[in-house]
Amino acid sequence: MPHRNLMEMAERFEVIYTITPRHGQTVEEIAQDIAVEQTVEIPFEVIPPSHHQQGIPGRIEEVAPINEGLSRVRISYRCDLTCFTVPQLLNVLFGNISLKDNITITGIVFPNAFAKRFSGPRYGVEGVRALTGANGRPIACTALKPVGLGLDQLSVYAEAFAEGGADIIKDDHGFSNQHFHPYNERVARIQDAVTRSNARTGNRCLYFPMVSGRFDEIEDQVRHAVNCGIKGILIAPMLVGFDTVRHLAETYELVIMGHPALTGVYFHDRSHGMTPAVMLGTIFRLVGADISIFPNAGGRFHFTRTECLDLASALRTPDVPWKAALPCPAGGMQLSKIEMLCQDYGRDTALLIGGNLLQQGNDLAASMRQFVDKMKEAC
Amino acid sequence: MPHRNLMEMAERFEVIYTITPRHGQTVEEIAQDIAVEQTVEIPFEVIPPSHHQQGIPGRIEEVAPINEGLSRVRISYRCDLTCFTVPQLLNVLFGNISLKDNITITGIVFPNAFAKRFSGPRYGVEGVRALTGANGRPIACTALKPVGLGLDQLSVYAEAFAEGGADIIKDDHGFSNQHFHPYNERVARIQDAVTRSNARTGNRCLYFPMVSGRFDEIEDQVRHAVNCGIKGILIAPMLVGFDTVRHLAETYELVIMGHPALTGVYFHDRSHGMTPAVMLGTIFRLVGADISIFPNAGGRFHFTRTECLDLASALRTPDVPWKAALPCPAGGMQLSKIEMLCQDYGRDTALLIGGNLLQQGNDLAASMRQFVDKMKEAC
Repeated sequence: MPHRNLMEMAERFEVIYTITPRHGQTVEEIAQDIAVEQTVEIPFEVIPPSHHQQGIPGRIEEVAPINEGLSRVRISYRCDLTCFTVPQLLNVLFGNISLKDNITITGIVFPNAFAKRFSGPRYGVEGVRALTGANGRPIACTALKPVGLGLDQLSVYAEAFAEGGADIIKDDHGFSNQHFHPYNERVARIQDAVTRSNARTGNRCLYFPMVSGRFDEIEDQVRHAVNCGIKGILIAPMLVGFDTVRHLAETYELVIMGHPALTGVYFHDRSHGMTPAVMLGTIFRLVGADISIFPNAGGRFHFTRTECLDLASALRTPDVPWKAALPCPAGGMQLSKIEMLCQDYGRDTALLIGGNLLQQGNDLAASMRQFVDKMKEAC
Repeated sequence: MPHRNLMEMAERFEVIYTITPRHGQTVEEIAQDIAVEQTVEIPFEVIPPSHHQQGIPGRIEEVAPINEGLSRVRISYRCDLTCFTVPQLLNVLFGNISLKDNITITGIVFPNAFAKRFSGPRYGVEGVRALTGANGRPIACTALKPVGLGLDQLSVYAEAFAEGGADIIKDDHGFSNQHFHPYNERVARIQDAVTRSNARTGNRCLYFPMVSGRFDEIEDQVRHAVNCGIKGILIAPMLVGFDTVRHLAETYELVIMGHPALTGVYFHDRSHGMTPAVMLGTIFRLVGADISIFPNAGGRFHFTRTECLDLASALRTPDVPWKAALPCPAGGMQLSKIEMLCQDYGRDTALLIGGNLLQQGNDLAASMRQFVDKMKEAC
């Protein structure tokens, strides 16, 4: 079907930008600049005429003023320029213009061609519910902390959290393969502790180890986890590479819990980068995150409530051809905030409270139970 | 030698930050916040006392005012927290604090423990000179552009550039595995074209293909290049993952030309991120870049001249235990700027002129010759 093939090759996807003109350029000039920079990347006058006919440079679809000099710009690109690979998609989205100023990606519209090439979340909201048995309420998550604690202690913590009713216990994202808690041994021992507790309580608590190994060891680490009976992993796309996550998500039957480490530079200055919704929502979902952790408003970080709700919406919207993923507001959340969290995010959410459980005292099972009870009350 | 091992485990490395206090916090409070956030990541009062004795939280070594509220802060971390892996090093450097505000990393001081675990550039300045035969002058680089051109045309371009005296011809960083110029065929054909020209001229021009494949295909792509006789690759750490680059650099006898795609969010707002010198200098060199491309001052991007010179210095400084790498000022450089580039960067530099050669007219060999002649005159 050469004709159909050709059609697909020329299919386009759209990127929506907010632009704050500076350096004396007009919005139209900046839009033109983006369309060229992200594709042919040569001076306009030497672009071959046939390139224009084939639609190879980006095409400006809309320039609309918002307010105070801000404009909304839509540019479309041929899908085949991305090779339907994550690295090259990121390249077309923001590779060179990351080095420019005052361009923020606020949305990406993927046509069907992408739905066929990317799998998105393997489990999504419903899959995670089926695995944990947590129905009709948020998923209760906590974290093993701090880095440097021995495996004996961490096993005790894990067993207590499982005992108290946690649905998911994740590693602190700083756990890697340190000698305090070496990866292989940690995964086996914590998984044992949680399994032991589940056998006693009848709960279906899951342990998600942090995976952040080298390029040449990460897949072995994941296989080890699978062999230990692990059902999900914590992974930070920016640390190990976005396509590493896509590959692991497609290859192994694991829940992918995405961590935002190193993504913050995209959001610091709202006038340049991507919105949290695009990066931690749309892109994390594209590479297969079933759960996306983000620093909730009112914690130790500075996302606004609106940004957080937009992010939750990007993870769950049916406008995207992949399964809905779970937003996971975190970053200094406390037991006292559970009611507000439930109101803001509703049931299809993973709530993560880590350090604050340690602050409640030594009976971690009791603190975890309090978390789960408050959550059940509130939702 | 258990004692020696223990010494090494407790060895520390230092990170230097510039901090702009906001949100009503003092510099000391922010420094304390970083030291905890990047290590134990739990409320201060629940850090186990033994953790302090073992030096597991970051340790504030210096807080020094600079001016106008800016302060210079030095914090040391136990080396073993990084596992001496790239993903976990990046995590300790900037993982969670990327999500905070007003923290810029301006320097990293690596002790010997790192020198033993990371190889840095395989070739460095002298190695690249030995491969290309370019001695006592900068390395002349150009680019095959634009994306979407067929292989016949690209081969003609490559042969002309080689004919004109290019030392290195790289792909445009937007070349991936698009059907216009599929990776395997492209590498073989362009390499052939350059080899043909070298046989005629006696030059030793090298072709560096862009490598940006999926996690599960990238190593095959590199092996294919090696099998075709390729001596170096263009690769963007942010697109494929920093540790992917480290692995490829350590495993294959290839010159690594680093591309800054997607790094720009680190520099947009100078009050939060890393300096170009740290990201495109120190970190690119650590993962094995022999050449680091960056957007030079006065081109299409907004690096200042001082930032560019600091970056060049980070790539070449003997204070770091790895071979010196070549700065490669680029991003809209023109023939008319060669003299200034030579003055600014000296001989141990790779000069990259791409689009501007196309602007000179159809005789690409002549334009390339002009580039090389001007460069030889100026240096």
